[in-house]
Amino acid sequence: MTDINKAIESLPWDKEPRGLYEPIAYTLASGGKRLRPTLALIAAEAIVNGGLLNGDVIDHVMPAALALEVFHNFTLLHDDVMDRAQVRRGRPTVHVKWDDNTAILSGDQMLIEAYKLLSDVPADKLPKVLKWFNEMATGICEGQQYDVDFEHANQVSIDDYMMMIEKKTSVLLAYAMKIGGYIAGANESQQEALYQFGLHIGLAFQIQDDILDVYGDPKTFGKAIGGDICCNKKTFLLLTAMERADGETKAELLQWMMASGKDTEKIAAVTAIYNRLGVREAGEAVIEQHTSKALQQLDRLPANYATEQMRQLAEKLVTRIS
Amino acid sequence: MTDINKAIESLPWDKEPRGLYEPIAYTLASGGKRLRPTLALIAAEAIVNGGLLNGDVIDHVMPAALALEVFHNFTLLHDDVMDRAQVRRGRPTVHVKWDDNTAILSGDQMLIEAYKLLSDVPADKLPKVLKWFNEMATGICEGQQYDVDFEHANQVSIDDYMMMIEKKTSVLLAYAMKIGGYIAGANESQQEALYQFGLHIGLAFQIQDDILDVYGDPKTFGKAIGGDICCNKKTFLLLTAMERADGETKAELLQWMMASGKDTEKIAAVTAIYNRLGVREAGEAVIEQHTSKALQQLDRLPANYATEQMRQLAEKLVTRIS
Repeated sequence: MTDINKAIESLPWDKEPRGLYEPIAYTLASGGKRLRPTLALIAAEAIVNGGLLNGDVIDHVMPAALALEVFHNFTLLHDDVMDRAQVRRGRPTVHVKWDDNTAILSGDQMLIEAYKLLSDVPADKLPKVLKWFNEMATGICEGQQYDVDFEHANQVSIDDYMMMIEKKTSVLLAYAMKIGGYIAGANESQQEALYQFGLHIGLAFQIQDDILDVYGDPKTFGKAIGGDICCNKKTFLLLTAMERADGETKAELLQWMMASGKDTEKIAAVTAIYNRLGVREAGEAVIEQHTSKALQQLDRLPANYATEQMRQLAEKLVTRIS
Repeated sequence: MTDINKAIESLPWDKEPRGLYEPIAYTLASGGKRLRPTLALIAAEAIVNGGLLNGDVIDHVMPAALALEVFHNFTLLHDDVMDRAQVRRGRPTVHVKWDDNTAILSGDQMLIEAYKLLSDVPADKLPKVLKWFNEMATGICEGQQYDVDFEHANQVSIDDYMMMIEKKTSVLLAYAMKIGGYIAGANESQQEALYQFGLHIGLAFQIQDDILDVYGDPKTFGKAIGGDICCNKKTFLLLTAMERADGETKAELLQWMMASGKDTEKIAAVTAIYNRLGVREAGEAVIEQHTSKALQQLDRLPANYATEQMRQLAEKLVTRIS
C-alpha cells in the first residue's frame, strides 16, 4: 500500500499543457482504496511464495499495477460526466470543477497514460498483458453500456444482472490478480486461480454493496441509505423481489416504483417488501456462494502470507459494513 | 487502399451490446481518405524495396495500420462532441444521431479497440510500436488541449501555432510512417527518415488547409470559404497578419475581429488585409520549406515505386486545391 501510494504520487503530471494534466493529477490524488494495484501486488506476492516482494519483482509488477489504477480512475472520470455526478470522494468532480470538455479530453489522456504505464511491462510478458488489459477494458465499457441499457429495459433477469456486474466490476479485479501473478511467474493453473478469485470476490462485493445500500448502518456506510430504492435502480435485491413477488405484493412493489416525492415512505415500504420476500437472505446466499468459490481457488495456489491475506480479504467481504 | 478498405469493412462490430458497437461501425463506415493506414503501408512498401507487399508483410503491418485509422476516427468522434459539430463527412455526428453519453462511451471503446488491433503486432516489434503509438496519442491530446488554450489566449506566436499543429496533426502521420516502416524492417536511419517525412508533409498539409480556407475555390474545397476568418480562428494566416500588421492596418484587423454579423464584408476586408501583408505568400513559403524537408528524407530511403509515390504525394500537397 505504501509502495503503491508512493508510486502513484511520483507519477509525473507536472507537465504542459496544464489544462490536460491537472485534472489527471487531481483525480489520482483524491485517494480511494487503491484496491486494484493492491490485488495485483498481492497476487505477485502469492506467486513468489509470500516472502516480501523483492525490488525486481516490484519493479516488474508495479507498471501494470499502476496502469490498472489509472485505468480505474479514468472510468470514474468519464462515468461522472455521463452520470452528471457532482461529487466524488468528497470533492467536486472534474466536469464540475473544470467543464465537460476537459473531463472528456483529460479522461482520454488518462486512458492513454494507462497504456503508457503498461508499455513498461517486461517485453516478454507484454503481449499477453496487453491482450488481457484490452479484454478487461472492453468488459468494463460493455458492462457500462449494459448498465445503461438495463435502466430502460422492461425485463432484466438476475442472470443479466450478474453478467453486467461481472463485466462492470469483477473483470478488473480478476485481471488485476491474473496480470500481477503472471508477471511474477504464475503458471497457467495459478493464473486461472487468481483470475477466478478476483472474479468471485468482485461479484460478492457488488451484491454486498446492493445489500448495504438498503440494510447498511448510515454511520458506517458513508452514503444515504435507500438511494437505490429511491431511483428504482435494478439491483440484485429489486430484481429478486420482482422475480419472487406475485399478486398483491407485486402490485404494491410496482406502485411504489412509480411513486415520486415520498422517499422516506418509499424506502420503508420497499424495504418491508424485501423483508417479506427474503431478498436480503437470497443476496447473502449468493455472496456466500461466490466467497466460497473464491476461497476454493486458494487450493491451487501456494499456502503463504499473501494467500492468507487473500483468504482474509474474501472472508471480510461477507461481513463488511462499509 | 482496396486492402485497407476491405480490412476495415471486415472488422467485427456485429457484437453485443449494440449500443456500444453500432456507433463505432457507423463512424468507421463513413469513409474518409484512409490516409494514415495508407501511409503506414507505403512506408512498409518503401522498406521492402517497392515490390508489392507480400502477404506476410501485409499481415504484419495491417494491424498497426488499422489501429492508426481506428484511433484517428476515435479522435474525430470525441472532437465532434467537444466542438458540438453536427455533421461529419455528410452525416449526422454520433452525439447527434445518438447522444453525448453514447459518443463518450463508444469513443472510449474505440480507443481500446485501437489498442486491441495493436496487440496483433508481431511480439518482437510490439514494445517499440506500443511506446510510439502512446507518444503519438499523447501528442494528439496535448495538441487538442493547446488548440483549446490558444482560442482564449491573447498572444499566440507562430512558433506556438506550429508546435500545436505538429502535435495535433503531424505526429500521427509521422508515426504512421515510422511504425509501418519499422514493422517491415526499417533500420534506425530509415525510421527517422520516414518519421520526418510524415511530420513535414503534415505541417505543409495543415498550412495549405489554412490557405485554402481563405483562397480556395468553393467548388473544389468542399467547405464555405472564409469560415476561419468569421470565427477569428488563430490560423497561420491570422497569426502572421497579426505579427506583420502595424498602426492603421493592425487597428483595422482588430476592429474586424470584434465585428459580428457582417460575415461577407468581414471575409472580404480581412482577405484584403491578408493580401496587403502578403500572408498567403508567407504560408506558401513555409509549405515549400516543409515539402522540401520531406523530400530530402527520400535520400535516406531506397529509390523504388513506393518512395516515388511518397515524392508525388509531397509534391501534390503544395498544389492541392481541395
